[in-house]
Amino acid sequence: MLLGAPAASQAAEPAPVAVAKSGITRIDPTFWWVGMKNPELQLLVYGPGIGSGTAAIDGSYPGVTLTSQEKLENPNYLLVNLRIEPTAKPGKLPLTFTGGAKKQKFQYELRARTTPGDKSKVQGINTADFIYLLMPDRFANGNPKNDIVKGMRAPGIARDSMFSRHGGDLKGIEDHFGYLKELGVTAIWPTPIVENDEPKASYHGYAATDWYRVDPRYGTNDDYVRFVQNAHKQGLKVVHDVVLNHMGTSGYLVKDAPSKDWFHQWPEFTRSNFRDAAFNDPYVSAADRKQFGEGWFDKHMADLNQSNPQVSRYLIQNFLWWVEYTGLDGYRVDTYTYSDRKFLMDWGKAILDEYPNLGMFAETWVQGTGQQAYFARNVFPEVQGFKSNMPGVLDFQLQYAINEGLTKDAGWTEGISKLYYTMQADWMYEDPQRNVVFLDNHDVSRFFSVVGEDFQKYKMGIAWLLTTRGTPQLYYGTEVLMKNYSNPDGKVREDFPGGWPGDKENRFTKAGRNEQQNAAFEYVSRLANYRKSHPVLHTGKYMHFIPDNGVYTYFRYNEQGETVMVVMNASKEAKTVDTARFAERMQGYKSAQEVITGTSLDNLASLKVPAYTAWVLELKK
Amino acid sequence: MLLGAPAASQAAEPAPVAVAKSGITRIDPTFWWVGMKNPELQLLVYGPGIGSGTAAIDGSYPGVTLTSQEKLENPNYLLVNLRIEPTAKPGKLPLTFTGGAKKQKFQYELRARTTPGDKSKVQGINTADFIYLLMPDRFANGNPKNDIVKGMRAPGIARDSMFSRHGGDLKGIEDHFGYLKELGVTAIWPTPIVENDEPKASYHGYAATDWYRVDPRYGTNDDYVRFVQNAHKQGLKVVHDVVLNHMGTSGYLVKDAPSKDWFHQWPEFTRSNFRDAAFNDPYVSAADRKQFGEGWFDKHMADLNQSNPQVSRYLIQNFLWWVEYTGLDGYRVDTYTYSDRKFLMDWGKAILDEYPNLGMFAETWVQGTGQQAYFARNVFPEVQGFKSNMPGVLDFQLQYAINEGLTKDAGWTEGISKLYYTMQADWMYEDPQRNVVFLDNHDVSRFFSVVGEDFQKYKMGIAWLLTTRGTPQLYYGTEVLMKNYSNPDGKVREDFPGGWPGDKENRFTKAGRNEQQNAAFEYVSRLANYRKSHPVLHTGKYMHFIPDNGVYTYFRYNEQGETVMVVMNASKEAKTVDTARFAERMQGYKSAQEVITGTSLDNLASLKVPAYTAWVLELKK
Repeated sequence: MLLGAPAASQAAEPAPVAVAKSGITRIDPTFWWVGMKNPELQLLVYGPGIGSGTAAIDGSYPGVTLTSQEKLENPNYLLVNLRIEPTAKPGKLPLTFTGGAKKQKFQYELRARTTPGDKSKVQGINTADFIYLLMPDRFANGNPKNDIVKGMRAPGIARDSMFSRHGGDLKGIEDHFGYLKELGVTAIWPTPIVENDEPKASYHGYAATDWYRVDPRYGTNDDYVRFVQNAHKQGLKVVHDVVLNHMGTSGYLVKDAPSKDWFHQWPEFTRSNFRDAAFNDPYVSAADRKQFGEGWFDKHMADLNQSNPQVSRYLIQNFLWWVEYTGLDGYRVDTYTYSDRKFLMDWGKAILDEYPNLGMFAETWVQGTGQQAYFARNVFPEVQGFKSNMPGVLDFQLQYAINEGLTKDAGWTEGISKLYYTMQADWMYEDPQRNVVFLDNHDVSRFFSVVGEDFQKYKMGIAWLLTTRGTPQLYYGTEVLMKNYSNPDGKVREDFPGGWPGDKENRFTKAGRNEQQNAAFEYVSRLANYRKSHPVLHTGKYMHFIPDNGVYTYFRYNEQGETVMVVMNASKEAKTVDTARFAERMQGYKSAQEVITGTSLDNLASLKVPAYTAWVLELKK
Repeated sequence: MLLGAPAASQAAEPAPVAVAKSGITRIDPTFWWVGMKNPELQLLVYGPGIGSGTAAIDGSYPGVTLTSQEKLENPNYLLVNLRIEPTAKPGKLPLTFTGGAKKQKFQYELRARTTPGDKSKVQGINTADFIYLLMPDRFANGNPKNDIVKGMRAPGIARDSMFSRHGGDLKGIEDHFGYLKELGVTAIWPTPIVENDEPKASYHGYAATDWYRVDPRYGTNDDYVRFVQNAHKQGLKVVHDVVLNHMGTSGYLVKDAPSKDWFHQWPEFTRSNFRDAAFNDPYVSAADRKQFGEGWFDKHMADLNQSNPQVSRYLIQNFLWWVEYTGLDGYRVDTYTYSDRKFLMDWGKAILDEYPNLGMFAETWVQGTGQQAYFARNVFPEVQGFKSNMPGVLDFQLQYAINEGLTKDAGWTEGISKLYYTMQADWMYEDPQRNVVFLDNHDVSRFFSVVGEDFQKYKMGIAWLLTTRGTPQLYYGTEVLMKNYSNPDGKVREDFPGGWPGDKENRFTKAGRNEQQNAAFEYVSRLANYRKSHPVLHTGKYMHFIPDNGVYTYFRYNEQGETVMVVMNASKEAKTVDTARFAERMQGYKSAQEVITGTSLDNLASLKVPAYTAWVLELKK
């Protein structure tokens, strides 16, 4: 349905944006709440010629004042600034507009808050969680009816093309909540579910075309709210994937931009140089820094100019809106390093001021822990005008390290030693436990391929993932040994077998998995479920020992006397490990149980660990 | 001569320490000065049974008081604490001691300061310098008479063994001041010249046996003072190599230790694990940290316990003494990361409080800029109880980077890109210009070997060394293409050909070098001498551009309008570089002169740079 004409049209479901001939096409945020911490609200009103007139409250609305309004370069927009006192009641705020063809009215909806207080609804994401990253278009197709949505730009679905839509949706994910719970998952992170109405390659979700609308091929806005609610009922949390840096060029904000300076403009298409180093490089050229931050991520991704306070405000309000509207548990922030530095600080502060408990972690696909920690809350002062307030980051440095550890022989600094050195560098974070650790994701080669489809190495990676510090994240399908490389064909984003009606293979069921796939699923599931019930693997301290002879050993332990010892033999030969040097962590323990196999060890003095094997040992007194 | 018996025995020349049967064998510091910033002085008095009695000033000495004395575990020592007021006059302080076989007197010398004010004598080391690192035993033998010194433990010289003494000395270095000046060197850094009276492998100098004595095989203490003076007269500075972490086990302080807790004791010999990561690892085990800091560097290197305030005091005074005594210009601090954290802070503060202008840089053979910057003055707060006050470090990260840049093909992060990323990480330092950059040293493989004896790559390395930020350091012989690997035979410490009477080859002279060696010498010399007279390469700002297609380009520039552009083509093919992207640094410049070849370039729009070539271009308006 089209917004605009009748005053009763405001609803949770925004319609696809087609400019009305007259009247109000759209007001963003599409609705708001009374009682938000920040009483200020800026409405972006969109309608033909709307900017030529003025807005007013029709009569009065106790507790709400229209404090000012701003015209934009494009006369089809008007910014209206409201102040909503805590005393204001929910209801319909009657607004009048004189711009456009005729004077018109709009009932702007003010709702009662759904997250009273900070913690009742927003659970946040923490180290007790195990996050499952999936691409909703590629995971499961629960509702074939929404595969093709009339009026949308993409030419339908084509499962044989990696760049087309395949038809997965929210219902498909919900249908497999049981599977995820069996696996031990506690939180789902779908790549962005917001509308991506681009003609090409928008299946990944990173090119939003409507900031307030769930992509109808995944479901409606209401479906998403229900999705979050249902997830919560099942003990699953939801991480919402956020892009702050750019949006799809087919979005109405791009096609009919409020003003040129809402986006970074270039005389001709200019791609970012993708070098985050330019963000805080003391020796950077203006040219490199500009191209990094203002170059476009891709041809169909318009680079937002967040140094424009209107853009900043728009984005901040949008992401307050999603939390309040849906009750989501955390934000994963895409391409974090590409945005304006002041905006990033303002955005993070605004979100956390309102929702201190929200889980927040950013994509920081950078080189070196110094650089990675720079984009998280860290021990550094403000450097180059930036002091991050992002609680955690996706820990790419540890991903590099575990990959190297399992694919390169151990040397003084190489191979598994890199894992030791990378962990050591944790001193640069305010709290490294806030980082999210992972083996692979939708942008890199799948872990099972990286380790050469070596099942021993695979298990080592999983063992590490679920016992190291931070919050672990698994990429969909890694639990059933899905493989492939990110280059050159993007086949790391294949459909989960069994997610589509009629799929010949179904990895969601034991019967549909081969022996090794079942062993992999079992391995992940056992360890994840063990982890779930053992807080020592969430909040326990971490202590490691210098790698010795290709063996890296660490402990998770707490004051309640729980200790889990992990011995990683990342070498081609079995190794006998004399445990005397670990005395400070092993004293008092007499035996151990290997968590996945259940094997008991009665003599801890010396451990003979097979080649490429990680033992996860629960120590017992 | 033996100290002790006659009261007139105090002199600049300490004798080898052999314990007297009675009397005072030794007082450290061997003499001191009036008017030091810190009026407190602690004397370590050594003599049989000296600790059984007390010390006193015989009569009075205006301005000097004996404030307290402390017995030690070993009765052959007594600590005497003096306070020397600024009003005290130089002279002989008459001390009496009642300990030992009989009451005895000692005239302790208080000299007039030789470095009045802070800056007259101590020039410091800065970015205008070009440091030449050499091993005095291996550079040149100027005085064959001191090759074998009677009574010393090493069995003489053996030039055919890498682990024996070869006979080089201070005179040998002095004899080649002219050579060094021709090369463009401005500062000499010999590996430690302090007495290393060990039976084996002490030629390197890192196992001091007498903290107050120049190794007699290099010359006398007076020779060293003259060496510094002569160097200064020639416009050369002297960097004094310092070991704080350990000392030779043959030293009297070890053989007849003041107390057990002057050294880290182990039930059996325990080597350090050499993992500096343990210093500030948030996850470190007590065992690993202890072994790192308290394990011995080698069997004949006793690990000093600097957490003992007496040891700390002894070391601080010793290194104030060397500056005041010799007028040296800077300290290079060996194995910096291995020492006690509080001691390191105290030592650095004490030295810089007295000599704020002194050049100071530390060996930090660590992994990652975060870790390296942690040991320099940096932007971090105190972490793990340590906040470094070391102005600069030997920049191992850049050494790794330039080596990789010239030996590995350029990738997104690999090869020459690593140089870009490593420079970018400079934001972690308080001032990265205080770092000392180098291609090789006595502990690593020689640069010419590392680059596969590829002369093109060699020249690129030299070009980089002399134009990047910081103070460049060259390892002796690299200018004449000396080669070899650090493992397995240590042949990176071979004698400089021509340094010994009768050497068949003499690389000190043009005639003694082959064509390529002369070309190498010329290359270093031209660029070093150019650098010497062009402050833009000392204090100029640095700007670099993201490497493109294997080409890394940077600029040194200043407000006086000087600009040097360096284009490094680190690839197998010639590359045509479009300079439009460098406009912000090249605007206004119409031509350029390549500094080493003298070639003029009249068209700067496009540069065709041959394979593996660095152009150093002085831009001209």
